[in-house]
Amino acid sequence: MKYQITFLPQNIVTHAPEGTTIFNAANWAGLAIDSTCGGRGTCGKCKVKLVQGESAATEADHKYISTQELVEGWRLSCRAPLHQECVVDVPRLMTSPKAALLGYGRHVAIDPNVAKIYLQLDEPSFDDQRPDIERVIVALDKEGYAVRVDPAVWRTLPKTLRNNEFKITAVVCGDELIAVEGGDTTNTMYGLALDIGTTTVVGAIVDLKTGAVAAVQSTLNGQASFGADVISRVSYTMIEPDGLATLQTRIVETINTLVDQLLATCGVARENIYEAVAVGNATMLHLLLGIDPEAISVAPFIPVIEHAVTVPASHLTPHPLLPLSPLLTNFSQERGEGWSGVRLHPQARLCTLPHLGAYVGADIVAGALATGLARTKDDKWRLYIDVGTNGEIILGSASRTISTAAPAGPAFEGAQIKCGMRASDGAIEGVHIDDDVHLQIIGGTCRPVGICGSGLVDAVAELVRVGLVDSSGFLMRREDAANRFDPALVNRLIESNGVRAFLLSTPEEGIVLTQPDIRALQFAKGAIAAGVDVLMKLLGIQASALHEVLLAGSFGSYINPASARTIGLVPWVPVEHIVAVGNAAGEGAKIALLSFREREAANRIPDFIEYVELSSQENFNDVFTQALNFPDVKRNA
Amino acid sequence: MKYQITFLPQNIVTHAPEGTTIFNAANWAGLAIDSTCGGRGTCGKCKVKLVQGESAATEADHKYISTQELVEGWRLSCRAPLHQECVVDVPRLMTSPKAALLGYGRHVAIDPNVAKIYLQLDEPSFDDQRPDIERVIVALDKEGYAVRVDPAVWRTLPKTLRNNEFKITAVVCGDELIAVEGGDTTNTMYGLALDIGTTTVVGAIVDLKTGAVAAVQSTLNGQASFGADVISRVSYTMIEPDGLATLQTRIVETINTLVDQLLATCGVARENIYEAVAVGNATMLHLLLGIDPEAISVAPFIPVIEHAVTVPASHLTPHPLLPLSPLLTNFSQERGEGWSGVRLHPQARLCTLPHLGAYVGADIVAGALATGLARTKDDKWRLYIDVGTNGEIILGSASRTISTAAPAGPAFEGAQIKCGMRASDGAIEGVHIDDDVHLQIIGGTCRPVGICGSGLVDAVAELVRVGLVDSSGFLMRREDAANRFDPALVNRLIESNGVRAFLLSTPEEGIVLTQPDIRALQFAKGAIAAGVDVLMKLLGIQASALHEVLLAGSFGSYINPASARTIGLVPWVPVEHIVAVGNAAGEGAKIALLSFREREAANRIPDFIEYVELSSQENFNDVFTQALNFPDVKRNA
Repeated sequence: MKYQITFLPQNIVTHAPEGTTIFNAANWAGLAIDSTCGGRGTCGKCKVKLVQGESAATEADHKYISTQELVEGWRLSCRAPLHQECVVDVPRLMTSPKAALLGYGRHVAIDPNVAKIYLQLDEPSFDDQRPDIERVIVALDKEGYAVRVDPAVWRTLPKTLRNNEFKITAVVCGDELIAVEGGDTTNTMYGLALDIGTTTVVGAIVDLKTGAVAAVQSTLNGQASFGADVISRVSYTMIEPDGLATLQTRIVETINTLVDQLLATCGVARENIYEAVAVGNATMLHLLLGIDPEAISVAPFIPVIEHAVTVPASHLTPHPLLPLSPLLTNFSQERGEGWSGVRLHPQARLCTLPHLGAYVGADIVAGALATGLARTKDDKWRLYIDVGTNGEIILGSASRTISTAAPAGPAFEGAQIKCGMRASDGAIEGVHIDDDVHLQIIGGTCRPVGICGSGLVDAVAELVRVGLVDSSGFLMRREDAANRFDPALVNRLIESNGVRAFLLSTPEEGIVLTQPDIRALQFAKGAIAAGVDVLMKLLGIQASALHEVLLAGSFGSYINPASARTIGLVPWVPVEHIVAVGNAAGEGAKIALLSFREREAANRIPDFIEYVELSSQENFNDVFTQALNFPDVKRNA
Repeated sequence: MKYQITFLPQNIVTHAPEGTTIFNAANWAGLAIDSTCGGRGTCGKCKVKLVQGESAATEADHKYISTQELVEGWRLSCRAPLHQECVVDVPRLMTSPKAALLGYGRHVAIDPNVAKIYLQLDEPSFDDQRPDIERVIVALDKEGYAVRVDPAVWRTLPKTLRNNEFKITAVVCGDELIAVEGGDTTNTMYGLALDIGTTTVVGAIVDLKTGAVAAVQSTLNGQASFGADVISRVSYTMIEPDGLATLQTRIVETINTLVDQLLATCGVARENIYEAVAVGNATMLHLLLGIDPEAISVAPFIPVIEHAVTVPASHLTPHPLLPLSPLLTNFSQERGEGWSGVRLHPQARLCTLPHLGAYVGADIVAGALATGLARTKDDKWRLYIDVGTNGEIILGSASRTISTAAPAGPAFEGAQIKCGMRASDGAIEGVHIDDDVHLQIIGGTCRPVGICGSGLVDAVAELVRVGLVDSSGFLMRREDAANRFDPALVNRLIESNGVRAFLLSTPEEGIVLTQPDIRALQFAKGAIAAGVDVLMKLLGIQASALHEVLLAGSFGSYINPASARTIGLVPWVPVEHIVAVGNAAGEGAKIALLSFREREAANRIPDFIEYVELSSQENFNDVFTQALNFPDVKRNA
């Protein structure tokens, strides 16, 4: 249920779901209403006047708005949910001065969940014996921050105050005061964006003042040795008595190693990272949080948590050793080594984004955020596909949006492919075929050592396009090709260990694509295509209705849109409607880190995207069988 | 500022401070309005009708009360603060069925902050794929509990649900879900009341279903070896690099040993203790919480925290090792040994009560609660004195209440007294003098080994009463007494190590009261009497105006009211107006544990008791000098 809302004097019209606050609706419409508390109802700055429509006055309204103004329709826009069409006057519109370009062309106003507030406090006297913490809380309240206090702040507060003449910087994360630093440190404030994939973990350190990415790096998920996919990871926790503790420790160690590398790269201090936003599939985040994931893996597939959570980063370990010796708070990067959990600022928070279901996780929600899918205001149909071991799919428009997950298997990750590898140096990431084969290799080297997901898609697509693979996936015999294709190509049709294969590289390099590889890709893309097909049938739409197809992939290299279409991974739409957006999940994590309002928007995504359980769809196997074939190139062309 | 509130149909009239909720005012007046959420605005059961007076409708009101009823004046009484005189109709009055007699004749309705709720949840299916935690939260919400969830609950929830056919018991502490137990465990629920004295720590395990005390025990504070009083403890934290960590560890170890003994005594399981309420002076609670107490000890005497706090009991250690291995939650009492912090249920909370100032702490607030001082509704003046190293004093009536602390020194604790000892077996706790000396000895033995605080007060008072000590504190010479007193008494006037002394026991036992002992007591009682005098002068009242004098003492044995009056520790009032209430602080902790409403009342005590800094009173030294003398017995008699 959406309502129209008009903002005066600009006369900007938008539509927002029932219950969206006027403050957020304005933000979505590109009008950032002034606020220092980030929409928490505590600064009283986001006053707007309801010209048409009504909203009951809340306690916060009574606190900040006079009775006369209340009668005239003034309300705090962040406390006013939309329950009807309305017209709002925003007289003192101030847009946030800074913004960063992130994700898929998103211009994001910088408004992080972390705030630093410099305070010059009155020193205590016999006439003013207020306790230290009250002095800080009252001063913050005047600045518009109504905070809870992390107990760690109590412990060292008196020395910090007295060693700095009561001039301090309060560090607020959400509604919690997590640290008090001596002097004015407001210019130094960083966050960590984490995309935790089953295979790869990507981390970025982001400057929360400027939105600039200070460092970005990826590494293998240290759980990989316990199984390549989520199911084998869950099995490990079921079989081994300490399996869950082991896997949690592994991912935390992975993140800590990544953070060490990131800090070394950009020279940012560990204690200046106050918040992390982590996205990933439900199993990955359950393991990170130390939550038993077993019920995710068996029907009817139930996670313990789907909503976004915030926990102290130091608690993320089976036996968290809190980092706080009261006298050890002037910690150093070195001393960080002794801490437990994810080692950032000792009171740093780690926040997740919500999941849509057991197999459409926070990474997909982040992708929807990064691509603006969650802000779709028109009736154009958009399709989002995250291509990986599990293919997550979202299809929708302003009227209705649904999602599902398709079990693609590991082909796109390069696993179970004879010469498959991850998207790292030496991997073939692109293939073009004319009278011979031309390779694009990661790292710029001319010596390929294997083929990654995007290379696999390209290679098969090119073979289909030129006709060396038919629509059933059959690789042409050498004798059948001999008279119809260039000798350079014909010579590449070889036999490798008893199976038919196509030589992509020189014979010495020996990189081949085998008939079983093609079959594996057929199963992988077939699962996803079948999922897309089920969703399109549920919504009753055809490929021709698709306005945009967004292809995300956490496997590191961008899929070629034309190739994706050629193999039938995506419906047959004009190729310019297919956009490869790369690691949209990681971009979404950065956006959530930089903008509290965007994070709130992400947290509401589960309210309007329905989750469809593919395995309970009766016709899925029929659809899947049909989707195994490659599209008829000639017919579509 | 207080307002009159009248409850219909009973026509009960009371006065409550500005801002008190109608719910609490009713409770104070002895009418326990029905509620399952304990006044948190989430169960919607405490509806009352405002017949006269107004209260703005809150969000909770809009949720639970129809528009028509709102117009008629219905409000949730727990969300309606008093801002004017009003008349309230309470149609569906239900008093809590259970109550316990605690403190100084207090009849306390059992309404603990901990609640156990048995839930039979729907099992998940493809038609109901809600995550586990949402299933629990929604069910609790229906029962009137709007909870936040402790992350520890996430970790093991799926197994607990599935091993018990989704029949579970939720354990809610305050507004937090701290545990989920399999099956129906609602009948087993305990709490721990802690009175943390500088010298002695008293603990009691209380059955939160019945209010019965399952076990009570006291032990020495393990910090004692680092100094007898708060100042020497604070000094230790300033001098030693790890001093604070050491002292925190010591008090936590003391509590853990006490808990072990309590559990062994009553057979209650460790994992069934879900909450502790701890009271003590500001320094003791700062050390327990690991907070730097230095600023409490130097002018202008500033604590870090004065308000009540809630922390996980397991965090109370410089390096808390959280007890949560995800697969180790079917913990045993034995395994408890490996935990950190205060070892109760691994997610148990420890709550404190507020302080009034740096030297009038939560123990005194607890005493005010236990004695009903905080509920004084009439204009009769009441004086509360906690006699100890620090003498804390409260004086007031419904019109105004003030408090202060007087530095009595350690005499009342038996320290710096030649034969002084704590109130344990063999201590003289009572003395009567007629033609000879008669002793009352702790433990029923007839062989005294020393004298404790109450015995000291008695001994000096009796000597003053019979005339062997004059009003200046001078112990009569043997030669001056010879003709005027019984030979049995005269023979007791001896010289001991060069100072005049009075032999209390047989010469072989050798328990003496020396002239310096009497001087020490004069200084101790003089400080407290001077504090009382300053407060009485500030309020402009005389001793004759005192309706009641309440004598509390955490030194273990009850002070004799007549003796307290004889030595001038308390003003000269009819002896039946002086009441010895013993360990009122410990009783207050029990009351706060058993009743959330009483705890809320305790938390508001700082709002209406003013704190007077004795050291900043100009005339204090003059008053103190005068207060050193003993009252003229004959004149007062």
